Order: sequence, then C-alpha cells, then structure tokens
Amino acid sequence: MPVRDLTDRGEETIERLLAEAKGRLRQPDAGAEALRALIIGVLAAPEGNDPDAWMDLVVAGPGPALKERLASLKAELAAGDGVADDETPPDRRLADLRQELKRRGIDGFIVPRSDEHRGEYVPLRARRLSWLAGFTGTAGMAVVLPEIAALFTDGRYTLQAKAEVDAKLFLTLHSTERPAADWIGANLRPGHKVGFDPWLHTPDELSRLRAGCEKAGGELVACEDNPIDAVWSRQPPAPIAPIVAQDDAFAGKGSAEKRTEIAGQLMADGVDAAVLTLPASIAWLLNIRGGDVAYAPLPLAFAILGADAHVALFLDRRKLTPGLDAHLGDEVRIEDMDRFGPALEALGGEARKVRADPATAPAWVFDRLGAAGANIVKADDPCALPKACKNPVELDGFRAAHLRDGAALVRFLAWLSAAAPKGTLSEIAAAERLEAFRRENDHFRGLSFPTISAAGPNGAIVHYQPSAKTNRTIEPGSMYLLDSGAQYLDGTTDVTRTLFIGNGGARPSPEQRANFTRVLKGHIALATARFPRGTSGSQLDTLARQALWRAGLDYDHGTGHGVGAYLGVHEGPQRIAKAPNTVALMPGMVISNEPGYYKQGAYGIRIESLVTVRMSDANPGEERQMLEFETLTWAPIDLALVEVDLLGTEEIAWLDAYHAGVREALSPSLDRETLAWLADATRPLR
Amino acid sequence: MPVRDLTDRGEETIERLLAEAKGRLRQPDAGAEALRALIIGVLAAPEGNDPDAWMDLVVAGPGPALKERLASLKAELAAGDGVADDETPPDRRLADLRQELKRRGIDGFIVPRSDEHRGEYVPLRARRLSWLAGFTGTAGMAVVLPEIAALFTDGRYTLQAKAEVDAKLFLTLHSTERPAADWIGANLRPGHKVGFDPWLHTPDELSRLRAGCEKAGGELVACEDNPIDAVWSRQPPAPIAPIVAQDDAFAGKGSAEKRTEIAGQLMADGVDAAVLTLPASIAWLLNIRGGDVAYAPLPLAFAILGADAHVALFLDRRKLTPGLDAHLGDEVRIEDMDRFGPALEALGGEARKVRADPATAPAWVFDRLGAAGANIVKADDPCALPKACKNPVELDGFRAAHLRDGAALVRFLAWLSAAAPKGTLSEIAAAERLEAFRRENDHFRGLSFPTISAAGPNGAIVHYQPSAKTNRTIEPGSMYLLDSGAQYLDGTTDVTRTLFIGNGGARPSPEQRANFTRVLKGHIALATARFPRGTSGSQLDTLARQALWRAGLDYDHGTGHGVGAYLGVHEGPQRIAKAPNTVALMPGMVISNEPGYYKQGAYGIRIESLVTVRMSDANPGEERQMLEFETLTWAPIDLALVEVDLLGTEEIAWLDAYHAGVREALSPSLDRETLAWLADATRPLR
Repeated sequence: MPVRDLTDRGEETIERLLAEAKGRLRQPDAGAEALRALIIGVLAAPEGNDPDAWMDLVVAGPGPALKERLASLKAELAAGDGVADDETPPDRRLADLRQELKRRGIDGFIVPRSDEHRGEYVPLRARRLSWLAGFTGTAGMAVVLPEIAALFTDGRYTLQAKAEVDAKLFLTLHSTERPAADWIGANLRPGHKVGFDPWLHTPDELSRLRAGCEKAGGELVACEDNPIDAVWSRQPPAPIAPIVAQDDAFAGKGSAEKRTEIAGQLMADGVDAAVLTLPASIAWLLNIRGGDVAYAPLPLAFAILGADAHVALFLDRRKLTPGLDAHLGDEVRIEDMDRFGPALEALGGEARKVRADPATAPAWVFDRLGAAGANIVKADDPCALPKACKNPVELDGFRAAHLRDGAALVRFLAWLSAAAPKGTLSEIAAAERLEAFRRENDHFRGLSFPTISAAGPNGAIVHYQPSAKTNRTIEPGSMYLLDSGAQYLDGTTDVTRTLFIGNGGARPSPEQRANFTRVLKGHIALATARFPRGTSGSQLDTLARQALWRAGLDYDHGTGHGVGAYLGVHEGPQRIAKAPNTVALMPGMVISNEPGYYKQGAYGIRIESLVTVRMSDANPGEERQMLEFETLTWAPIDLALVEVDLLGTEEIAWLDAYHAGVREALSPSLDRETLAWLADATRPLR
Repeated sequence: MPVRDLTDRGEETIERLLAEAKGRLRQPDAGAEALRALIIGVLAAPEGNDPDAWMDLVVAGPGPALKERLASLKAELAAGDGVADDETPPDRRLADLRQELKRRGIDGFIVPRSDEHRGEYVPLRARRLSWLAGFTGTAGMAVVLPEIAALFTDGRYTLQAKAEVDAKLFLTLHSTERPAADWIGANLRPGHKVGFDPWLHTPDELSRLRAGCEKAGGELVACEDNPIDAVWSRQPPAPIAPIVAQDDAFAGKGSAEKRTEIAGQLMADGVDAAVLTLPASIAWLLNIRGGDVAYAPLPLAFAILGADAHVALFLDRRKLTPGLDAHLGDEVRIEDMDRFGPALEALGGEARKVRADPATAPAWVFDRLGAAGANIVKADDPCALPKACKNPVELDGFRAAHLRDGAALVRFLAWLSAAAPKGTLSEIAAAERLEAFRRENDHFRGLSFPTISAAGPNGAIVHYQPSAKTNRTIEPGSMYLLDSGAQYLDGTTDVTRTLFIGNGGARPSPEQRANFTRVLKGHIALATARFPRGTSGSQLDTLARQALWRAGLDYDHGTGHGVGAYLGVHEGPQRIAKAPNTVALMPGMVISNEPGYYKQGAYGIRIESLVTVRMSDANPGEERQMLEFETLTWAPIDLALVEVDLLGTEEIAWLDAYHAGVREALSPSLDRETLAWLADATRPLR
C-alpha cells in the first residue's frame, strides 16, 4: 500500500540533498520519490540506539553536512505524519472492515496479534489488532463476525484488554477459558465463511480454528490479501532499519561454519532445503543484526537454506549497510521479498523435500509449497536448537555483559536507596534513571524489553509497564518490583529484583517477608538443581514452586525463558514452565530463573536471574553425567525481605555465597560510595 | 482358525456329560463339538482364582457329579495339548512367515507385542511376537524384511531379549536409540511393501512406521488378516473366561448412572457415539469383570456407547455367566464379535460423529469408520478419566483391601526375618509363601502381576521375575527386593519393599544405606507433596529424583502409575514420570509412589506404596485449593537400611508417623508374635 499525501513534503530539502550526494548515492538512480519512501520506511522502524545509523543506507559514511540535511529531512517527513496512526474512530474501523468483508463475500475475519515472523514485538505496519481493537498487549486475537466481535487474551492481559478495548464493539474473553475456536463454534452461523490471512497463522493454529468453524457448520477461508490493509487508510509501510554484520568476535562462530553444520543435518535427513521464517534464526545463521522491531536487533526477512549450505535471503535490499554483501559472501544470494513465493514454488516444481516448522512458519508457506508439489517435512526450525546452545565465545560475552549490566543496576540500586525514601520518585523516573546508568555501558544497544518499574500494587500486575496514566510514586514503606534488561553487542540481560523501600522506620510485614522468602527458596532450589542430561525445563519447574505450594500459594507464569545472544530476550526452544516442554536443557543454553508471587491490589514479588547450563563436576561414585546452572546475573537480593528462619542451612549458604560473588564480580567497576552500599546490601547472614 | 486334531479327544466323557446335563445346558442345542470348543477356549484363558468358575458357562450351578465330570473332561482336553505351543523350530517359523508374505506379494511384516485391546497381558492366541521371536516381555515389536529381521525393545528388556531371541534370526535393538521406524527407513528397499495388521496398531503408531517406510521409498500396507495366524499351526483360540457382575457395593456407582454421565458429555460435545476398545473401560462402565488375561479381571470385548446412553457390547456370548443379561439390563445390547465391523459401518452410513481414541484404538476401527463416511472425532477414551477418579465407595474398598494386604505382607516379612537368615530360602519359595498369606485374605482374586522376588544382583533387573533358571537363594548379608500385589474384589494392591537380610552380624554397606536413604527421601518428597489443582504427575516426578540426582544417580523407569479398582494394576491416564503427561492429578485417583535405584550386578532398591489424591486442608492465608496424597499402603520400611544422618527433621517425622500408622492400621489383624516383630520393625527414630 503506497504511502499517500507526501509527494510535496520536504521537496526542497530533497532536491538539495540529491544534488549534494550525486555520485555517492547507494542507489545511484534513486530520485526524490525513492528517497522519500526510504525515509518513511525508516520512520516505520524503531529509532534504535544510534539514530543516525540509517543514513548509511543513503550514502556510505555521510559527512557532517549531509548528515545534518538527512536528519532535517527525516524530521520534516516525521512532522508530516508519515507513519502516524489514523484518526478513524474505532467503531468506524470495525464497520469499514465488515463492509470490506461483505464486498469479498465473506462473513467474518480473524485478526491475530502476530505478524509473518511470529515476533514478540511487531512493526507498526503489522499492528492490525491494535488498529482494529485498540489492544496493545503482545498476545491476543480478535474474531469479527457479522453482528458480534470478540477479543481473546490470556490471563496476563485480561485487565489491560478491558481497559483498552471498547466493550460496545468487542467482547473481551479469556483465551484459555473460552478459546477462540470454541467461541466461533458456538457463534458462527451455518454456511458462513470466516476469513483469515494465511501469512499470519501457523498450520497448528489453523487446525484448531478450522475445527471451530466446522463445528458450527461454517467454513474457514484464506484471504489472498489482508482485508484490514485495504481499509487501514494510514497503514505504515514495512520498516527499514540498517542491517549490520555481527562480528565473529561476538558471534564466536562464522556463518559459513554454522551453515555447513545445519546443511549437513538436512543432508543426513534426506531433506533438500529448510525454510526459515524467524528473523532471529536468520540473524543467528548469517551473523547479522537489524532493527526492524523494538527491543531486539532483528532484520525482518525470510530465508531458504539448502542442503548445499547455500542460502537464499529474501528482504528489502535497501536495509543492507555498506559492505554487508561481502560479509554475507557468495553462498548467500540476496533476493527481493517478492521472490520468496516463486522460490517456494520452484522447490515444489522440483518435488524437493522441504523442511518447515508448523509451529512458527505461516500457513502461506505450507500452502505454496504444497500446491507446487513439494514434499513437506514438518519439523522444528533447524536453527532453534544450535542458536539456543551458546558457544564459549557467546558465553564469555554473556558473562562480560552481565558484569557491566550488574554494575549499572547496583549503581542504580545504591542511588535508589537514597532517592526513594524521599517519597517523590515515580516509576517512570526510576526506570529512566536505570536506563541512563545502562546507557553508559560499553556495547549498549538499547533495552531488551520495556522496563517493568512497578510500585506497590502495580507489582501484582505481572506484565505491568508504567504509563503516564498509571505512573505511581514509589512510596517509602512499600514494595517495589523492577524487571529490566538490556541488549549489548556481546549479550542480552534480563533481571528482576524486588525491594522494600525503607524510610528509617518502616519494615516489611511478616507476610511480605515470608512470601518473599518462599519465592527466594524457589529461586535457590532452581539455582542449585543438579539434573541428568535429557532433563527438560518442565521437569524442573516444580522445584521453583514447592515452597509456595506448601503455603497454598502459586504464580501464574512460567519460571524460565530462553534468552538470545544479542537477539530476542525471549527465545526457545527450552523453557521452564508447568506446561510440558520436551526440549532437554543442554550445556550453553541461557535461561531465566524467575519464580514470583503476586498479591492482587497489594504487591508483587519476583526474583529473576539469568543462568546458563553447564556440566556438573562428578564426585566419586557418581554414575550419570549431571548438569547444573551457573548464575550469570550479579545483583543483590534485598535482605530486608528475607526471613532467615524460613531458610535451611544450605539455602543460607547459597545466598551468602551468591552475595560474595556479587561483590567480587562488581567491585572492580564501582566507586567507593557504591561499594560501601553494596557491602551492606550483601552482608553475610551467617 | 479352527482347533485341529481334537475331534476324537474326550469323546466318551462328552457323550455321557451331554446326556446327564440334558435340558440344563445353557446353550440348549450345543453338541459335542461346541462343548469341546468351549473348553478349549477355557483352556486358552488363565485358570483364575476359582478353577471351576467356568463350569457355569456350561450349566448354571452344576452339581458335584457334573462338576467332577466337567473337570475331568477339561483335564483330558488339556492333556491332549489343545492349547500347547507348537514345536516348529524358530528358524522354520520365520521362514514360514516369509513364504506366506511372498505368497501375498508383500516384502515385510511388522509384529507388535500388542493385541487388539492394548493390554499389558495378552491372551495366548495373541502372543504372536513370542511365537515368532521367542521374546516374552510385555513391550516390543519385530520387523521382518526379506533378508533381515529385528526385534525392538526398551531399556527394561534389552538383556531379556538377548537371552530369549536367536541372534542368527533377529537383531535385537533398543527401541528409543534405534526406533523401528528409523530402522525400516534405513533397511527397506525402494518399492518394497511392508505389511501390518491394522487390528494391532493405533493410528498414532502407524504414522511413525509409515514415515519410516516412505523415507526408504517403500510402502506400508494393511493386511486383511494376520499372516502369522496363517502359518501358526497350533495357535490357541480366543480365551473364554466367565464374565461376572461387579457388585454395586464395590463399584460404588451403578452402570446406568455411569453411562448417563458419559453419554451426557458426548451429547454436550455433539458426538453421537464413542467406540470403546479397552476392556478395562468396558468393565468399569458396565460394572462387569472377566478373566480372559492373566493378573487383571478383564473381559476381552468391544463396545459402542451412544449419546443416548445405550451400549452395544461385542463379545463371545459363551462367556456370560447366568444372570449377567439381567445385570446389564435393556440398555446394553449384546452382539457377537463379528457384528462390530458392521456396527461401525452403520455409524458411518448415517454420517454420525463418532469418538475414538487414536492412542489406544486399532487403526482398523478408524479405517472402517472412515471408509463408511463417519465423522471421526479423535479424542481419548471417555471412560479413562472417570474410571481413574475413584468414588468414595471404591476408595473405602482400596483402604480395606490395603489393610488386609498389609497384614499379609507383614506376616510374611515377620516369617521371612526368621526364615531367610538360614540361607536356604529361594526367590520362588519366598514369593509362594507370600502368595499363600495373601490367599487367606477375604475377597482375594489372585495376584495383580507376577511377583518380583529378587535377591542380590537380581534386584537390579527392573522387571525381573524369578524362573527355574534364574532362581537365587536369598542370602544373608544381601539385599532383597520384593515387588508384589494382589487383586481383591474391593481393590488392587501393589507394594515394593527392599530389605537387608541380616544374620546377626552382617550390616548393609554405607553405600547401600546412603542409596536406600536417597530413594527414601524421594519417596517421602512425593508422599508429602502439596500441589495446586491442575498439576500433572510429570510435574511432580523430579521431587522423587532430587536426592539421587544430587549424588549423580538416577533410575530409568517412571515414578508412578495409575491403579484400577479391581482392574489393571497399571492404568492411565495419570502417570508420574519424566515423560510429559498433561493429565492433572485429581481427587480420588490412585497412583504408585515408587522411586528406585539399581546397581548393575549388585543390588536393586525400590520403595513403593500406593497413594490416593485428596484435597489438602487449607491453612489461613492460603489462596489456592491444594491437593496432596494419602498413602494407602501399610508396610514397614526397613530401618536397617536408613542412614538417619541423611534425613532432615521433617523426613524423620514422616517416617516415624508412617510407621506409627502401620502399627495402628494392622495391629487388629495380627497375632502377638507378628505384633512384636512389627513393633521393632516400626520403632521410632526420634
């Protein structure tokens, strides 16, 4: 969909700029319109850590004068609301969609939150659910039928959905108690057709939705193009953020070696090619990073890896920074996005055996392959597991990043211990101060997710993000939950600490101390777990909950998620959770250890560190190779909230040793004043 | 396949018998041949606890004279080797099968251990794997190809398979390290066809095997009838054991009520009928018990439950004892086995929505339903979950059965403590003595599985059963593992205790005591677990292994299996194991708690009690409804093997309380001498 009404914007600036850059433009024939479109694409991407990085996409290494002109052009176009949301009221949007559906001869439509790449963060262009229903959470789905419509979200988002969504337009339903497929089954009229966008659903998802439609005697039908895109008048274009090389010094293994290893596995399985649709997999495989979405350095792209270790990479070429072709090398063929479909068809035409992941790849990929005659092998993304098992260089990077990140967090905590008791600090101000400390760190590239800075009762909202509307003062005598992390070139961090904000007199209640200590006991049980090879995170989850269960308490989220190496802060395939996951924990995997407890309307507790899986040294008489965790995160656990009587001898020993480790790890990077604070914060209990 | 060469056996006895029973025969027109066939069928079933019970199938309530004559006729026919195994040598059997395959134009054949009903114990007639390969374990599969053949078994049976199977005829392979499907993929020639019997595989199984065949460019084809049945010259007929009513006083809920409840659920799901192929489900639903296989009172049958709560029951009518028609009532229509297929087709012809379980029902059922046009709903057996959640009457039955069973076990243990130190007692003699004690109990109906009476190193063979060849003396100064259980009309038991056989001086080694105590810690961790509703057994499994894992040890079997109420001793759907299982533990479920440790060539340790799930009383401040276990089994845990220093305070308190419970529960049923032994065996540690 072309961007409209911008042809006259920045006309003068552009003409001057083109004249100045003549001969140096990276797209030599590009005129005013192309430059304008590029910059609108840049505006449709997050700004990123270096707001001028995109300029390399126009001219390699622009001088100060050109940079200034480019910056002013971008500002002009931004002011011209190139990517601003449209002002159509919500009821009009829904009505427009229903009319469009009618025009197409279908009766309903499914609007997931996902984009084609199944990302946790999606680009502006793909925020169709937010455009239609106003819901901004990271998981959800709307179903629009002729007379009714419903929004389905999980337990994390039920409160937020009710706050954001117009109840006159959408029912808001709990996706596990009332799954969308069931609701369709109960509400669709016989003979009615429900449309879906095959780019936005996996085959696994569709089989459930199809069953719901069929139960009602209706039909689920694929739409050639998304009807929302037809009625969303100011839909932003696809984002354009620079793609850069990830240096081998951080990646630890060259792309050619990675490609050869995975291609060898495809070969051994008798598979000709694997389709990759997850940007994190592609970024890892090719040692590249991008910036098309917030909080993770991902380049939106598709790829096909052949059993000959060659890759066809489908993306918008305008995103390539100078020299990236050379970095990718001859075995990576760069193709335009619109060549992805024909490439799948070509594989089908040759009746190739093609691997694709039914849990993450769009149904569109399977349909296209299938229609063309490919022999589809449904299996997981072949990069998922090797990407999860960090190599020694990546692990060293993680350790180094955690030293810097821990020092920043400790500087913040020391600052907070003086600032918060005054009773004037807001959640947002605290989060900004912490970000400022992190920003001073080497290799800092931005936050890895929106900081959860949650005072008092806001701490009980598991996925809370402070906004102007909710921003609370961090009050003395209350609990404060801080979950934050950063992206560094050498690793990704994610840490939660829960603090009691003292003011001289106030002390946490016995209940607060007891519950904090129960969460801590779970955290320690996981941190000290030993387990044989082959053990999955699901098998360890209960260790983190035992102490809470004994007290009749629990928490409604997973205990640990995988973390990428300067990639997504939430990555699979391993996971520590109640839900079964059969992926064995393997040496080098990085995963979070984050039990919690939430008291609605009162306070929240979570203690989160990242850990990595490593071999455990064997004692005499041991028969099995055991694994264990190494904690990567260095940050004190608030002793004011620890009820020592509830801890066993070994638990106290662990906490004291961990705190000694924090002091040892961070002391070299801290000033004297912070060190004094840290010494007290990490004083031994025994 | 008709039974051959028997037409002249017992001729005279039969004639006299028919004359005497004239007018009272339950099949009035039955002649000599029918009577002979009936008795051969009886011989093809296990003898059961009451060896004369079958006589009711000939004449209702036969008098002493008739009974004597029937007994002698049965003995005559048994001596005439009516169901004896044939003497064809193994290589000839395999060659005969290959020739039969050739005749049918197929190149290979798959021989699973399963029968049509997926039972742990299968009738003589269905022991095709044992006939072909000699392997007698309860899980395995052979694949016969033109030049090679292989037997696949899991880790429990690798040693046994090597001992039983002729290595010149069959490779023996580990089914997880080298799955049959993979092996076929690597060894089948392109274009070759591998046959299978669609009665003996579930659709879930077949999809894996089919993938293996297709990988090799071959094909998996269904055989109309089993080629082994065509070449097995003395294949026994289907078993005939009497089917009796299970009294409401034990069942706790009438069959009509059960049928109405489950039919209501089918109705709510818009399903017209459910196909039941598991005898335990049918026995539970109709409150009947049979005896077609060993160790579990199961009637081999199929059934179709309609959403109108009516049942069509497909079985050999000769198995019905007098009055069973009345017990079943008008809503249960009894049909011959050969009407099962046409009944499935009739459902298809009416395009009904039919539920069947792809994890347990034969592919034959799905094929037949599908071909006839039924709308198949793949879902679990609808009886599985309600059967697993015992009602209060069943639970009281379990408790009562465990009091009697515990008293028998304690009498045995007291006897053993005097008998074993002499050093002459064999594993088999001990097992027989224990069975004799149990046999004296009210409601005793037989063992619930072959007793594992394992001395010293035999204890390390997880599924050991003593045989004449392996029978060891239980030696003073060694470990002895005893895993046994019984079927009672009011409940089923399964208990393992591991003992150190003293002789005055000998003491267990520190290693034995440490490892026993680690297993005990796991047992206690599970016995004392509290967990929220929705928790599966898989989530608790790690609690039972933690102490072993800390010492670099583990065990290669599950931690807990469901137990039926006077049904199978191993039943689902709940399970405590490493492998993911999503079935939540629910109040009333009965499950075993049996961690272990096995030192190859030295000794085995297992501590097993049955437990039932119940609501846990809430303390003030608790937010979630928690569940916990009630231990049902009453038998002392050998204190000679407990290393008290390795136990925590709460663990010692649990053990002392459990032992006090054993004394309290069993004292009323024990004599003074046994009581004195028990008082010492259960002395408090603190």
